[in-house]
Amino acid sequence: MIISIVGGTGNLGKGLAVRLALAGYNVVIGSRVDEKAKAKAEEYCKLCGCKIEGLSNEKAIEVCDVAILTIPWENALDFVKEHRKVLSKKIVVSPIVPMVKENGFVYNPPNGSMAESIANILGDKVVSSFQNVPAKRFSNLNEIPEFDVIVCGDNEDAKAVVMEIVNSIERLRALDGGPLSNSRIVESFTPFLISLALRNGMKELGLRFV
Amino acid sequence: MIISIVGGTGNLGKGLAVRLALAGYNVVIGSRVDEKAKAKAEEYCKLCGCKIEGLSNEKAIEVCDVAILTIPWENALDFVKEHRKVLSKKIVVSPIVPMVKENGFVYNPPNGSMAESIANILGDKVVSSFQNVPAKRFSNLNEIPEFDVIVCGDNEDAKAVVMEIVNSIERLRALDGGPLSNSRIVESFTPFLISLALRNGMKELGLRFV
Repeated sequence: MIISIVGGTGNLGKGLAVRLALAGYNVVIGSRVDEKAKAKAEEYCKLCGCKIEGLSNEKAIEVCDVAILTIPWENALDFVKEHRKVLSKKIVVSPIVPMVKENGFVYNPPNGSMAESIANILGDKVVSSFQNVPAKRFSNLNEIPEFDVIVCGDNEDAKAVVMEIVNSIERLRALDGGPLSNSRIVESFTPFLISLALRNGMKELGLRFV
Repeated sequence: MIISIVGGTGNLGKGLAVRLALAGYNVVIGSRVDEKAKAKAEEYCKLCGCKIEGLSNEKAIEVCDVAILTIPWENALDFVKEHRKVLSKKIVVSPIVPMVKENGFVYNPPNGSMAESIANILGDKVVSSFQNVPAKRFSNLNEIPEFDVIVCGDNEDAKAVVMEIVNSIERLRALDGGPLSNSRIVESFTPFLISLALRNGMKELGLRFV
Protein backbone atom coordinates (compact mmCIF):
# COMPACT_ATOMS: atom_id res chain seq x y z
CA MET A 1 0.00 0.00 0.00
CA ILE A 2 1.30 3.44 -0.93
CA ILE A 3 0.62 6.26 1.50
CA SER A 4 1.27 9.78 0.28
CA ILE A 5 1.76 12.52 2.79
CA VAL A 6 0.65 15.60 0.92
CA GLY A 7 2.45 18.75 2.02
CA GLY A 8 4.42 16.40 4.22
CA THR A 9 7.41 18.62 4.99
CA GLY A 10 6.19 19.85 8.39
CA ASN A 11 6.35 18.16 11.79
CA LEU A 12 3.26 15.97 11.48
CA GLY A 13 4.29 14.92 7.97
CA LYS A 14 7.78 14.07 9.16
CA GLY A 15 6.51 11.98 12.06
CA LEU A 16 4.04 10.15 9.86
CA ALA A 17 6.52 9.54 7.04
CA VAL A 18 9.22 8.10 9.22
CA ARG A 19 6.98 6.07 11.50
CA LEU A 20 4.86 4.68 8.65
CA ALA A 21 7.99 3.76 6.68
CA LEU A 22 9.27 1.96 9.78
CA ALA A 23 5.93 0.14 9.95
CA GLY A 24 6.54 -1.18 6.44
CA TYR A 25 4.41 1.08 4.27
CA ASN A 26 5.56 2.58 0.98
CA VAL A 27 5.66 6.25 1.84
CA VAL A 28 5.68 9.20 -0.54
CA ILE A 29 6.32 12.76 0.62
CA GLY A 30 4.49 15.34 -1.43
CA SER A 31 5.35 19.01 -1.64
CA ARG A 32 4.36 21.89 -3.91
CA VAL A 33 7.98 22.04 -5.01
CA ASP A 34 9.38 18.79 -6.41
CA GLU A 35 12.95 19.48 -5.22
CA LYS A 36 11.79 20.18 -1.67
CA ALA A 37 9.91 16.87 -1.60
CA LYS A 38 13.01 15.03 -2.79
CA ALA A 39 15.26 16.75 -0.26
CA LYS A 40 12.89 16.01 2.62
CA ALA A 41 12.44 12.40 1.48
CA GLU A 42 16.20 11.98 1.53
CA GLU A 43 16.44 13.55 4.99
CA TYR A 44 13.72 11.27 6.38
CA CYS A 45 15.29 8.19 4.73
CA LYS A 46 18.46 8.86 6.64
CA LEU A 47 16.54 9.09 9.90
CA CYS A 48 14.84 5.72 9.62
CA GLY A 49 16.89 3.76 7.09
CA CYS A 50 13.79 3.10 4.98
CA LYS A 51 13.01 4.07 1.41
CA ILE A 52 10.84 7.20 1.23
CA GLU A 53 10.09 8.86 -2.08
CA GLY A 54 9.69 12.58 -2.74
CA LEU A 55 7.29 13.83 -5.42
CA SER A 56 5.24 16.90 -6.27
CA ASN A 57 1.87 16.90 -4.53
CA GLU A 58 0.19 16.25 -7.89
CA LYS A 59 2.24 13.13 -8.56
CA ALA A 60 2.05 12.03 -4.93
CA ILE A 61 -1.73 11.84 -4.99
CA GLU A 62 -1.70 10.09 -8.38
CA VAL A 63 0.44 7.17 -7.21
CA CYS A 64 -1.07 6.56 -3.77
CA ASP A 65 -3.81 4.44 -2.25
CA VAL A 66 -4.16 6.68 0.79
CA ALA A 67 -3.48 10.42 0.87
CA ILE A 68 -2.90 12.11 4.22
CA LEU A 69 -3.41 15.85 3.82
CA THR A 70 -0.89 17.55 6.09
CA ILE A 71 -1.47 20.91 4.44
CA PRO A 72 -2.29 24.27 6.04
CA TRP A 73 -5.99 24.58 6.73
CA GLU A 74 -6.18 27.86 4.79
CA ASN A 75 -5.25 26.09 1.54
CA ALA A 76 -6.98 22.79 2.16
CA LEU A 77 -10.31 23.32 0.42
CA ASP A 78 -8.74 24.96 -2.64
CA PHE A 79 -6.29 22.07 -2.94
CA VAL A 80 -9.05 19.51 -2.64
CA LYS A 81 -11.23 21.28 -5.21
CA GLU A 82 -8.33 21.51 -7.65
CA HIS A 83 -7.53 17.80 -7.33
CA ARG A 84 -11.06 16.54 -6.85
CA LYS A 85 -10.94 14.10 -9.79
CA VAL A 86 -7.90 12.20 -8.51
CA LEU A 87 -8.56 12.51 -4.77
CA SER A 88 -12.16 11.32 -4.93
CA LYS A 89 -10.86 7.86 -5.97
CA LYS A 90 -8.54 7.59 -2.95
CA ILE A 91 -8.91 7.22 0.77
CA VAL A 92 -8.22 10.74 2.00
CA VAL A 93 -7.22 11.40 5.61
CA SER A 94 -7.76 14.83 7.15
CA PRO A 95 -5.65 15.64 10.21
CA ILE A 96 -6.38 19.31 9.55
CA VAL A 97 -7.52 21.65 12.31
CA PRO A 98 -8.74 25.07 11.22
CA MET A 99 -7.88 27.56 13.94
CA VAL A 100 -7.10 31.23 14.28
CA LYS A 101 -4.96 32.99 16.84
CA GLU A 102 -6.82 35.53 18.92
CA ASN A 103 -5.88 35.55 22.58
CA GLY A 104 -4.95 31.87 22.29
CA PHE A 105 -5.99 29.58 19.47
CA VAL A 106 -9.66 29.43 18.58
CA TYR A 107 -11.34 26.71 16.52
CA ASN A 108 -12.61 28.16 13.27
CA PRO A 109 -14.23 25.47 11.12
CA PRO A 110 -15.85 25.90 7.73
CA ASN A 111 -19.40 24.40 7.87
CA GLY A 112 -19.24 22.02 10.82
CA SER A 113 -15.69 20.72 10.49
CA MET A 114 -12.79 20.66 8.06
CA ALA A 115 -13.22 16.92 7.50
CA GLU A 116 -16.88 17.31 6.55
CA SER A 117 -16.07 20.22 4.25
CA ILE A 118 -13.54 18.04 2.44
CA ALA A 119 -16.04 15.17 2.24
CA ASN A 120 -18.59 17.54 0.72
CA ILE A 121 -16.16 17.91 -2.18
CA LEU A 122 -14.66 14.40 -2.40
CA GLY A 123 -17.34 12.01 -1.16
CA ASP A 124 -17.47 9.45 1.59
CA LYS A 125 -13.95 8.00 1.53
CA VAL A 126 -12.75 10.94 3.62
CA VAL A 127 -11.63 9.92 7.09
CA SER A 128 -10.44 12.24 9.85
CA SER A 129 -7.57 11.31 12.14
CA PHE A 130 -4.32 12.48 13.81
CA GLN A 131 -5.75 15.93 14.69
CA ASN A 132 -4.79 15.68 18.37
CA VAL A 133 -1.31 14.23 17.88
CA PRO A 134 1.32 16.68 19.23
CA ALA A 135 3.20 17.19 15.98
CA LYS A 136 6.56 18.34 17.23
CA ARG A 137 6.93 15.51 19.72
CA PHE A 138 5.64 13.06 17.12
CA SER A 139 8.30 14.21 14.65
CA ASN A 140 11.04 13.32 17.13
CA LEU A 141 11.95 9.65 16.79
CA ASN A 142 13.38 9.60 20.31
CA GLU A 143 9.91 10.34 21.58
CA ILE A 144 7.81 7.26 22.22
CA PRO A 145 4.26 8.32 21.55
CA GLU A 146 1.60 6.74 23.72
CA PHE A 147 -1.32 8.59 22.29
CA ASP A 148 -4.82 7.55 21.40
CA VAL A 149 -5.83 8.54 17.90
CA ILE A 150 -9.51 9.00 17.12
CA VAL A 151 -10.63 7.97 13.64
CA CYS A 152 -13.95 9.29 12.29
CA GLY A 153 -15.58 8.47 8.99
CA ASP A 154 -18.79 7.49 7.25
CA ASN A 155 -17.33 4.78 4.98
CA GLU A 156 -16.60 1.84 7.27
CA ASP A 157 -14.12 0.21 4.87
CA ALA A 158 -12.08 3.39 4.51
CA LYS A 159 -12.19 3.92 8.27
CA ALA A 160 -10.95 0.36 8.88
CA VAL A 161 -7.98 0.95 6.56
CA VAL A 162 -7.05 4.14 8.42
CA MET A 163 -7.43 2.49 11.82
CA GLU A 164 -5.04 -0.25 10.66
CA ILE A 165 -2.56 2.42 9.54
CA VAL A 166 -2.79 4.18 12.91
CA ASN A 167 -2.35 0.93 14.83
CA SER A 168 0.69 0.03 12.72
CA ILE A 169 2.57 2.90 14.36
CA GLU A 170 4.18 1.68 17.54
CA ARG A 171 2.28 2.69 20.68
CA LEU A 172 -0.43 4.64 18.89
CA ARG A 173 -3.90 3.24 19.55
CA ALA A 174 -6.69 3.86 17.05
CA LEU A 175 -10.18 4.39 18.43
CA ASP A 176 -13.29 4.40 16.28
CA GLY A 177 -14.68 7.90 16.75
CA GLY A 178 -17.90 7.23 14.86
CA PRO A 179 -19.29 9.20 11.94
CA LEU A 180 -17.38 11.96 10.18
CA SER A 181 -19.63 14.55 11.84
CA ASN A 182 -17.82 13.80 15.13
CA SER A 183 -14.72 15.35 13.58
CA ARG A 184 -16.00 18.66 14.87
CA ILE A 185 -15.48 17.53 18.47
CA VAL A 186 -12.04 16.09 17.73
CA GLU A 187 -10.83 19.08 15.72
CA SER A 188 -12.05 21.54 18.34
CA PHE A 189 -10.04 19.75 21.00
CA THR A 190 -6.70 20.66 19.38
CA PRO A 191 -6.66 24.41 20.09
CA PHE A 192 -7.92 23.54 23.57
CA LEU A 193 -4.98 21.14 24.07
CA ILE A 194 -2.56 23.85 22.93
CA SER A 195 -3.92 26.42 25.37
CA LEU A 196 -4.16 23.83 28.15
CA ALA A 197 -0.46 23.09 27.79
CA LEU A 198 0.48 26.78 27.72
CA ARG A 199 -1.74 27.64 30.68
CA ASN A 200 -0.42 24.81 32.85
CA GLY A 201 3.25 25.13 31.92
CA MET A 202 3.32 21.73 30.23
CA LYS A 203 4.89 20.47 27.03
CA GLU A 204 2.82 19.81 23.91
CA LEU A 205 -0.01 17.51 25.00
CA GLY A 206 -1.52 14.38 23.55
CA LEU A 207 -4.60 12.42 24.62
CA ARG A 208 -5.08 9.09 26.34
CA PHE A 209 -8.41 7.56 27.20
CA VAL A 210 -8.09 5.56 30.40
CA MET B 1 -14.00 24.14 54.63
CA ILE B 2 -17.46 22.67 54.12
CA ILE B 3 -18.23 21.17 50.72
CA SER B 4 -21.84 20.37 50.00
CA ILE B 5 -22.66 17.91 47.29
CA VAL B 6 -26.09 18.99 46.16
CA GLY B 7 -28.20 16.11 44.87
CA GLY B 8 -25.27 13.97 45.89
CA THR B 9 -26.96 10.59 45.98
CA GLY B 10 -25.83 9.42 42.52
CA ASN B 11 -22.51 7.94 41.42
CA LEU B 12 -20.56 11.17 40.99
CA GLY B 13 -21.88 12.48 44.30
CA LYS B 14 -20.92 9.26 46.05
CA GLY B 15 -17.40 9.31 44.63
CA LEU B 16 -16.91 12.95 45.51
CA ALA B 17 -18.36 12.62 49.02
CA VAL B 18 -16.24 9.66 50.01
CA ARG B 19 -13.03 10.78 48.38
CA LEU B 20 -13.30 14.39 49.64
CA ALA B 21 -14.08 13.16 53.15
CA LEU B 22 -10.98 10.95 52.96
CA ALA B 23 -9.02 14.03 51.87
CA GLY B 24 -10.07 15.76 55.09
CA TYR B 25 -12.91 18.03 53.99
CA ASN B 26 -16.15 18.45 55.89
CA VAL B 27 -18.63 16.94 53.48
CA VAL B 28 -22.39 17.41 53.39
CA ILE B 29 -24.65 15.32 51.15
CA GLY B 30 -27.71 17.21 49.97
CA SER B 31 -30.88 15.65 48.66
CA ARG B 32 -34.39 16.90 47.96
CA VAL B 33 -35.60 14.54 50.65
CA ASP B 34 -33.97 15.01 54.04
CA GLU B 35 -34.23 11.33 55.01
CA LYS B 36 -32.62 10.18 51.79
CA ALA B 37 -29.69 12.53 52.41
CA LYS B 38 -29.25 11.17 55.94
CA ALA B 39 -29.44 7.54 54.78
CA LYS B 40 -26.88 8.13 52.01
CA ALA B 41 -24.59 10.05 54.36
CA GLU B 42 -24.67 7.11 56.74
CA GLU B 43 -23.95 4.66 53.90
CA TYR B 44 -20.98 6.73 52.68
CA CYS B 45 -19.66 7.14 56.25
CA LYS B 46 -19.45 3.38 56.56
CA LEU B 47 -17.51 3.15 53.30
CA CYS B 48 -14.75 5.56 54.28
CA GLY B 49 -14.89 5.78 58.08
CA CYS B 50 -15.23 9.56 57.92
CA LYS B 51 -17.99 11.82 59.17
CA ILE B 52 -20.36 12.84 56.35
CA GLU B 53 -23.53 14.77 57.08
CA GLY B 54 -26.86 14.45 55.26
CA LEU B 55 -29.15 17.48 54.86
CA SER B 56 -31.86 18.76 52.57
CA ASN B 57 -30.46 20.55 49.54
CA GLU B 58 -31.69 23.86 50.96
CA LYS B 59 -29.80 23.40 54.22
CA ALA B 60 -26.79 21.91 52.46
CA ILE B 61 -26.23 25.04 50.40
CA GLU B 62 -26.79 27.29 53.45
CA VAL B 63 -24.01 25.71 55.52
CA CYS B 64 -21.36 25.26 52.83
CA ASP B 65 -18.42 27.22 51.43
CA VAL B 66 -18.41 25.30 48.17
CA ALA B 67 -21.45 23.71 46.53
CA ILE B 68 -20.94 21.02 43.91
CA LEU B 69 -24.13 20.64 41.88
CA THR B 70 -24.48 16.95 41.04
CA ILE B 71 -28.07 17.41 39.94
CA PRO B 72 -29.75 16.32 36.69
CA TRP B 73 -29.17 18.87 33.95
CA GLU B 74 -32.90 19.17 33.29
CA ASN B 75 -33.48 20.62 36.78
CA ALA B 76 -30.26 22.56 37.14
CA LEU B 77 -31.30 26.02 35.98
CA ASP B 78 -34.60 25.95 37.91
CA PHE B 79 -32.75 24.92 41.06
CA VAL B 80 -30.17 27.65 40.63
CA LYS B 81 -32.83 30.31 40.01
CA GLU B 82 -34.79 29.20 43.07
CA HIS B 83 -31.71 29.37 45.31
CA ARG B 84 -30.00 32.30 43.62
CA LYS B 85 -29.76 34.40 46.79
CA VAL B 86 -27.84 31.79 48.79
CA LEU B 87 -25.83 30.25 45.94
CA SER B 88 -24.54 33.55 44.57
CA LYS B 89 -22.51 33.96 47.79
CA LYS B 90 -20.83 30.56 47.43
CA ILE B 91 -18.31 28.98 45.13
CA VAL B 92 -20.51 26.84 42.91
CA VAL B 93 -19.07 23.94 40.92
CA SER B 94 -20.87 22.64 37.83
CA PRO B 95 -19.98 19.11 36.75
CA ILE B 96 -23.23 19.07 34.79
CA VAL B 97 -23.38 17.90 31.18
CA PRO B 98 -26.61 18.55 29.32
CA MET B 99 -27.15 15.76 26.83
CA VAL B 100 -30.00 13.97 25.12
CA LYS B 101 -30.17 10.42 23.83
CA GLU B 102 -30.78 10.17 20.12
CA ASN B 103 -28.79 7.46 18.39
CA GLY B 104 -26.11 7.82 21.08
CA PHE B 105 -25.78 10.77 23.43
CA VAL B 106 -25.73 14.24 21.94
CA TYR B 107 -24.55 17.40 23.67
CA ASN B 108 -27.46 19.77 24.15
CA PRO B 109 -26.34 22.92 25.97
CA PRO B 110 -28.47 25.91 26.88
CA ASN B 111 -26.74 29.08 25.54
CA GLY B 112 -23.14 28.02 25.09
CA SER B 113 -22.72 25.67 28.04
CA MET B 114 -24.43 24.67 31.25
CA ALA B 115 -21.70 26.29 33.34
CA GLU B 116 -22.12 29.64 31.58
CA SER B 117 -25.90 29.44 31.92
CA ILE B 118 -25.50 28.95 35.67
CA ALA B 119 -23.01 31.82 35.86
CA ASN B 120 -25.49 34.06 34.04
CA ILE B 121 -27.77 33.56 37.06
CA LEU B 122 -25.24 33.39 39.92
CA GLY B 123 -22.29 35.52 38.88
CA ASP B 124 -18.60 34.85 38.45
CA LYS B 125 -17.89 32.43 41.31
CA VAL B 126 -19.19 29.58 39.17
CA VAL B 127 -16.49 27.09 38.23
CA SER B 128 -16.89 24.05 35.99
CA SER B 129 -15.15 20.77 36.75
CA PHE B 130 -15.50 16.95 36.98
CA GLN B 131 -17.61 16.72 33.79
CA ASN B 132 -15.38 14.06 32.20
CA VAL B 133 -14.89 11.91 35.29
CA PRO B 134 -16.39 8.44 34.69
CA ALA B 135 -18.92 8.52 37.52
CA LYS B 136 -19.52 4.83 38.08
CA ARG B 137 -15.83 3.96 38.28
CA PHE B 138 -15.22 7.04 40.43
CA SER B 139 -17.90 5.90 42.89
CA ASN B 140 -16.06 2.61 43.43
CA LEU B 141 -13.42 3.04 46.10
CA ASN B 142 -11.50 0.02 44.80
CA GLU B 143 -10.95 1.95 41.59
CA ILE B 144 -7.84 4.10 41.62
CA PRO B 145 -8.65 7.04 39.40
CA GLU B 146 -5.82 8.45 37.36
CA PHE B 147 -7.79 11.08 35.57
CA ASP B 148 -7.07 14.64 34.62
CA VAL B 149 -9.77 17.05 35.67
CA ILE B 150 -10.18 20.30 33.77
CA VAL B 151 -11.22 23.32 35.80
CA CYS B 152 -12.67 26.36 34.01
CA GLY B 153 -13.75 29.65 35.53
CA ASP B 154 -13.57 33.42 35.25
CA ASN B 155 -12.90 34.16 38.93
CA GLU B 156 -9.29 33.13 39.50
CA ASP B 157 -9.67 32.84 43.30
CA ALA B 158 -12.68 30.55 43.01
CA LYS B 159 -10.90 28.51 40.35
CA ALA B 160 -7.83 28.12 42.58
CA VAL B 161 -10.00 26.81 45.43
CA VAL B 162 -11.61 24.24 43.15
CA MET B 163 -8.24 23.17 41.70
CA GLU B 164 -7.01 22.58 45.25
CA ILE B 165 -10.10 20.49 45.98
CA VAL B 166 -9.53 18.41 42.83
CA ASN B 167 -5.86 17.90 43.63
CA SER B 168 -6.71 16.81 47.18
CA ILE B 169 -8.28 13.66 45.72
CA GLU B 170 -5.63 11.02 45.36
CA ARG B 171 -4.41 10.61 41.79
CA LEU B 172 -6.70 13.22 40.27
CA ARG B 173 -4.78 16.03 38.58
CA ALA B 174 -6.40 19.43 38.18
CA LEU B 175 -5.62 21.37 35.02
CA ASP B 176 -6.49 25.01 34.53
CA GLY B 177 -8.87 24.94 31.57
CA GLY B 178 -9.06 28.71 31.22
CA PRO B 179 -12.17 30.85 31.15
CA LEU B 180 -15.65 29.52 31.88
CA SER B 181 -16.49 29.77 28.18
CA ASN B 182 -14.20 26.77 27.61
CA SER B 183 -16.72 24.69 29.55
CA ARG B 184 -18.48 24.15 26.25
CA ILE B 185 -15.55 22.12 24.94
CA VAL B 186 -15.21 20.14 28.16
CA GLU B 187 -18.93 19.44 28.52
CA SER B 188 -19.25 18.37 24.88
CA PHE B 189 -16.50 15.81 25.37
CA THR B 190 -18.57 13.75 27.82
CA PRO B 191 -21.18 12.35 25.41
CA PHE B 192 -18.31 11.75 22.98
CA LEU B 193 -16.43 9.74 25.67
CA ILE B 194 -19.56 7.68 26.34
CA SER B 195 -20.06 6.81 22.67
CA LEU B 196 -16.32 6.21 22.19
CA ALA B 197 -16.38 3.61 24.97
CA LEU B 198 -19.50 1.92 23.60
CA ARG B 199 -18.22 1.90 20.02
CA ASN B 200 -14.83 0.45 20.95
CA GLY B 201 -16.07 -2.08 23.51
CA MET B 202 -14.31 -0.36 26.38
CA LYS B 203 -15.35 0.41 29.95
CA GLU B 204 -16.38 3.90 31.01
CA LEU B 205 -13.56 6.21 29.93
CA GLY B 206 -11.70 9.04 31.60
CA LEU B 207 -9.15 11.45 30.18
CA ARG B 208 -5.42 11.80 30.61
CA PHE B 209 -3.28 14.45 28.97
CA VAL B 210 0.15 13.01 28.23
